[in-house]
Amino acid sequence: MRIKVVWPGKTKDLNIRELQEYYLKHINRLGRCELVETKAAKGIHERYSKKILNFEAEELERYLEDSYIICLFHKGNEMSSEEMAVFMENKSVQVPRTMTFVVGGFLGVADRLLKRADYLLSLSRMTFSHELTRVILLEQIYRSLSIIKGKKFAK
Amino acid sequence: MRIKVVWPGKTKDLNIRELQEYYLKHINRLGRCELVETKAAKGIHERYSKKILNFEAEELERYLEDSYIICLFHKGNEMSSEEMAVFMENKSVQVPRTMTFVVGGFLGVADRLLKRADYLLSLSRMTFSHELTRVILLEQIYRSLSIIKGKKFAK
Repeated sequence: MRIKVVWPGKTKDLNIRELQEYYLKHINRLGRCELVETKAAKGIHERYSKKILNFEAEELERYLEDSYIICLFHKGNEMSSEEMAVFMENKSVQVPRTMTFVVGGFLGVADRLLKRADYLLSLSRMTFSHELTRVILLEQIYRSLSIIKGKKFAK
Repeated sequence: MRIKVVWPGKTKDLNIRELQEYYLKHINRLGRCELVETKAAKGIHERYSKKILNFEAEELERYLEDSYIICLFHKGNEMSSEEMAVFMENKSVQVPRTMTFVVGGFLGVADRLLKRADYLLSLSRMTFSHELTRVILLEQIYRSLSIIKGKKFAK
């Protein structure tokens, strides 16, 4: 199973960035996961949100290629960690392409990416900060791979 | 609104602990929130899970007093961040006691605490590590208070 995770801009919070590295390292002991932090929109005022989202979408799209795209979206489908493990395992057999998780920036993700996505995933009914979302997603990917590999996961 | 958060044992992961402090500091700019890290069970083998859960429950109970108890539980009720804000605001009027959030340790929480709780809250259908759960909860409390105070919340 080849996994890719893409999001706009380097994580700014240093603690979150370290947690991100921690989970990435652990994921890569169980599988192959590449993280791509694409160019974030800079110098555009927040009121031009469409411009920001479009710029970020263009950058994200450069890394999607023909992969199976799972886009994080608050109105997406929720699943338990066990269900996510089954989902990932099934998809890796049915669709033997890279599985790419897309996480939006601080304004979310452009509509056209939502439309292009093969699957919309919601981590929770709650809203998390976009940087915290990154860590939560990586922890879930690690947890899913651990479940798939039948390893005991640290509680 | 007086808020208390209790969980067994000091957070071990240093990055998670710093994030925890960060959110606590921000929460305390908007309200009053006390964190109590109670004694964790030590030196008991994981196979004696009931013993661990009982020990931790006894320690947690020392800080519950007559508060309104919200216990985190994976089969609890899910809500959006906006719903949580409304919930907290309503409860603080209806039940003018301290609102205490209880987060279980790595084995979860003892049944008797679930029974004693006034409300069972689930952050997600997914399972998060118990230390990551702490940060996610604090971020949600901060987000809820920000919504209540009508402040613009960092995305």
